[in-house]
Amino acid sequence: MKRINIGLLGLGNIGGGTYQVLELNRGHIEKVTGLDLRITRILEIDTDRDRGFTVPPGIFTQDPEAIFGDPGIDIVIELLGGIEPATSFMTGAMKAGKSVVTANKAAIAANYELLTGTAADSGVEFRFEASVGGAIPLIGAITEHLCANEFTELLGIMNGTTNYILTKMGEEGRDYDDVLKEAQELGFAEPDPTADVEGHDVANKLSILMSLAFGMRVRPEDIPTTGITEITKQELDEAAAEGCVIKLLMGAHSAEGGAECFVKPTRLDKGHPLAGVRNEFNALFLKGNATGDLMLYGKGAGPFPTASAVLGDVIAIGRRL
Amino acid sequence: MKRINIGLLGLGNIGGGTYQVLELNRGHIEKVTGLDLRITRILEIDTDRDRGFTVPPGIFTQDPEAIFGDPGIDIVIELLGGIEPATSFMTGAMKAGKSVVTANKAAIAANYELLTGTAADSGVEFRFEASVGGAIPLIGAITEHLCANEFTELLGIMNGTTNYILTKMGEEGRDYDDVLKEAQELGFAEPDPTADVEGHDVANKLSILMSLAFGMRVRPEDIPTTGITEITKQELDEAAAEGCVIKLLMGAHSAEGGAECFVKPTRLDKGHPLAGVRNEFNALFLKGNATGDLMLYGKGAGPFPTASAVLGDVIAIGRRL
Repeated sequence: MKRINIGLLGLGNIGGGTYQVLELNRGHIEKVTGLDLRITRILEIDTDRDRGFTVPPGIFTQDPEAIFGDPGIDIVIELLGGIEPATSFMTGAMKAGKSVVTANKAAIAANYELLTGTAADSGVEFRFEASVGGAIPLIGAITEHLCANEFTELLGIMNGTTNYILTKMGEEGRDYDDVLKEAQELGFAEPDPTADVEGHDVANKLSILMSLAFGMRVRPEDIPTTGITEITKQELDEAAAEGCVIKLLMGAHSAEGGAECFVKPTRLDKGHPLAGVRNEFNALFLKGNATGDLMLYGKGAGPFPTASAVLGDVIAIGRRL
Repeated sequence: MKRINIGLLGLGNIGGGTYQVLELNRGHIEKVTGLDLRITRILEIDTDRDRGFTVPPGIFTQDPEAIFGDPGIDIVIELLGGIEPATSFMTGAMKAGKSVVTANKAAIAANYELLTGTAADSGVEFRFEASVGGAIPLIGAITEHLCANEFTELLGIMNGTTNYILTKMGEEGRDYDDVLKEAQELGFAEPDPTADVEGHDVANKLSILMSLAFGMRVRPEDIPTTGITEITKQELDEAAAEGCVIKLLMGAHSAEGGAECFVKPTRLDKGHPLAGVRNEFNALFLKGNATGDLMLYGKGAGPFPTASAVLGDVIAIGRRL
């Protein structure tokens, strides 16, 4: 059994889910990977909150240097969210020789070159499967298993909040405001839903996927982005009458000298594989010049699905350590 | 650029596709992986056939030892198909220190312990993504990205021939014999379709996936298997009238002391993600205790999709060499 010591930055919603999934599946992970994964330090200010599970006393620190400077720690998991201080903490960990795993799409979309460059310069790994598509192994598929393909097209439903809203509006004939309120009550939408409903969350994800699939760097703010706030019941009904659904799609296709991309509500024929992606589910549809059509579908958010991807990355690094 | 020399066993349908995709995407692969993949020897008796592409003169050999004994060769790709001599050639290559990549589901299902054991004993890698689900990265997902999950259920449409036949019978009201004949003309069905239509092909794939997802070895012949030859138009019509489709499903779920499994024509509600998998496409639906529901969809056969998976495995090994 190979022991891997982990420093965790943030024990919020996703950090807590990661801690819990590791405890829940510890025996399984040891059996299939031969790795003994141990979270030995947690950077977290809110140490007293009742999270519904307990962590060992003394594991918390408020000093990131207590993690970066600990020679026993192999991997740092960053689950603070937001661009800063998350980016500085990740580069700090890398410079201290720690491989880094994150779910932080905003930090990666904003600082992709800095983060990948610092990892390369520091000779450590930087993995971020959980940043796009939650549990769905999109990044692994694109950068590893399918990397012998030239991709010609990506098309995705990559935001659970907006897909939930559009599904309920379309199938139950309800109003945008009514469904948004329900989604907030169910925890599928944030109290401030702007980043989701305006499409900015999806633009961050598309920016990351374009870097990986097309080797092309497009900043999220440079992606033409339209959200779902203007969609009406009437438009959804008209689409349905013509055998279509309306989905908030992100898309990119190879074009002369690069790739073109968008985030916008789009009509899809009901026969398209993405048309059946309902409620909070996400899916990425892609075309490769060897694979042909391919689709990966699953839960794009939530503590446990995100934890699955985070731990998959930790295991990938741990197997090579 | 790191040079990787490859010995290819078999330049038939899949071997030829692999050779062609490597040539077609050579520049792309070099750019994204830094690997210069070279097929330097090909074991093949039929050297004179017009394949629509040319290989360098002198690359062919009829002696497997010319490949296993060549210290310059790093990886052997086995695309002969069939249990023997493929199994003996793979273990021979491993014992000679070569990592092995194959698409051969029959050999793996029959000789899983022998092949994985010989690879481990020889200190080489053995990868077989292409053996199940063609281009779809099922094995990578289960054994790498999702391996922090305990899987509770697998459900799959894993045979393109039978899914094509059932789709056409259901959607166009045609007879089994009529559609089978068309599928044979289109190249979606073999001249002798027994292994497909009786479900044996799917049982081989399920045997492999159960080893990986449940750590449980069930030989293909021990999986209760029913094919599609008895399915009538009337049954498909009755299912449709009740909002269902009939698919040839493989399934396994965890049970007391192990797992239960089957291959059989099964009714699926049209709302199920697998119900929309049409024609020659394949998909695997799985449940993990962290991921929840997940589905991977794509082309499960064909020279180019299979080549994508073979080359993905070659690249994974090449990156670590």
